[in-house]
Amino acid sequence: MPAYAVLTTVSNQPGILFGLTRVLADRQANISHVDIISHVDRDTEIYLEFAVEGAIEPIVEGLRTVTGVSAVEATPSFSKIYGKRIVIMGGGAQVGQVALGAITEADRHNIRGERISVDTIPLVGEEALAGAVRSVVRLPRVRLLVLAGSIMGGDITNAVEEVRGKGLIVISLNMAGSVPDVADLVVSDPVQAGVMAVMAVADTAKFDIVRQQKRKY
Amino acid sequence: MPAYAVLTTVSNQPGILFGLTRVLADRQANISHVDIISHVDRDTEIYLEFAVEGAIEPIVEGLRTVTGVSAVEATPSFSKIYGKRIVIMGGGAQVGQVALGAITEADRHNIRGERISVDTIPLVGEEALAGAVRSVVRLPRVRLLVLAGSIMGGDITNAVEEVRGKGLIVISLNMAGSVPDVADLVVSDPVQAGVMAVMAVADTAKFDIVRQQKRKY
Repeated sequence: MPAYAVLTTVSNQPGILFGLTRVLADRQANISHVDIISHVDRDTEIYLEFAVEGAIEPIVEGLRTVTGVSAVEATPSFSKIYGKRIVIMGGGAQVGQVALGAITEADRHNIRGERISVDTIPLVGEEALAGAVRSVVRLPRVRLLVLAGSIMGGDITNAVEEVRGKGLIVISLNMAGSVPDVADLVVSDPVQAGVMAVMAVADTAKFDIVRQQKRKY
Repeated sequence: MPAYAVLTTVSNQPGILFGLTRVLADRQANISHVDIISHVDRDTEIYLEFAVEGAIEPIVEGLRTVTGVSAVEATPSFSKIYGKRIVIMGGGAQVGQVALGAITEADRHNIRGERISVDTIPLVGEEALAGAVRSVVRLPRVRLLVLAGSIMGGDITNAVEEVRGKGLIVISLNMAGSVPDVADLVVSDPVQAGVMAVMAVADTAKFDIVRQQKRKY
């Protein structure tokens, strides 16, 4: 089915998304992505991506009639623009080095037609990191997580086991604590960890991380 | 109003989000974030954040009764976990250096209670970059864009003017092409550009980018 995207401008009140999704459900459109973008100085925008048989014009017209909606425009889909995501989290010094390797390698693959983005969050503390690890599987388009630090264990290790159980690939730097014991792959050099992370998710690469399971570099 | 988050497991078919949002609209819940997470090997998940007066239990019960929904669990909200985002795009060599500065600086602010994440996409070509710039304002929680390259102009410049018109702050490296002419701030050293980007969005910093308008460093 053809995929479309629309950007709507709406008032910030309950029931708007219900109204918009009713129009899409009535036409059997399958929604694949939603973003609600709040602004301090103007109306909220809701961005929707969906697949549907048939023309988009009647849907755009239908969305315009929803109460609270002031504007609707068809727009390019951005899942194509941002592509797959790698997330790197941990201490700033190590996250920066892993990012350097990942960004350079992603650049090489993106030139060949891939779309890989590299997202980072410098974060310390067992509780904060464990929470961030658990929520990474709820972010759209994330394929792989790199944990970059000097010591990680305790509840972070539990969180890594949980997200691996949900299918996320986890690379850990070689570090103190129990996180390296539960990662898919352990790498000592942070730049190399970043490069391997990208190779693992790129369709343009031939590196199979599953074959590397539990290896240490 | 108290804010809540739920993670639902659903079948991949039209109408599910309509069913879920009907339950929330019936209870005057105001939805602030939606993520649809597709998996190749198991059911789709839909994550919803919303604010509502009253208890969450009846809402969770209501969501469980929606056709196509197999599981609903209350979960921690992740807008608190990932916080504000800075996006860096352009050529891999420069994006990596800007990221290094931004990640190091974000680490220093995050230790003091901020939550700033640094997202990057290495990308070349006028059309691809212009599209990515335009769509950055549709990504949630993005406060600032850094354009990092050696030459950018043409339609990328038009795109920068459009997103600045929508309130996004844009920092450009000092480079060839017309993009530096339309940015809020132009910085020659990529590491410093990354540091300034974080200072500009951190509540824990005292740097006011508006005062720096059209300055070149």
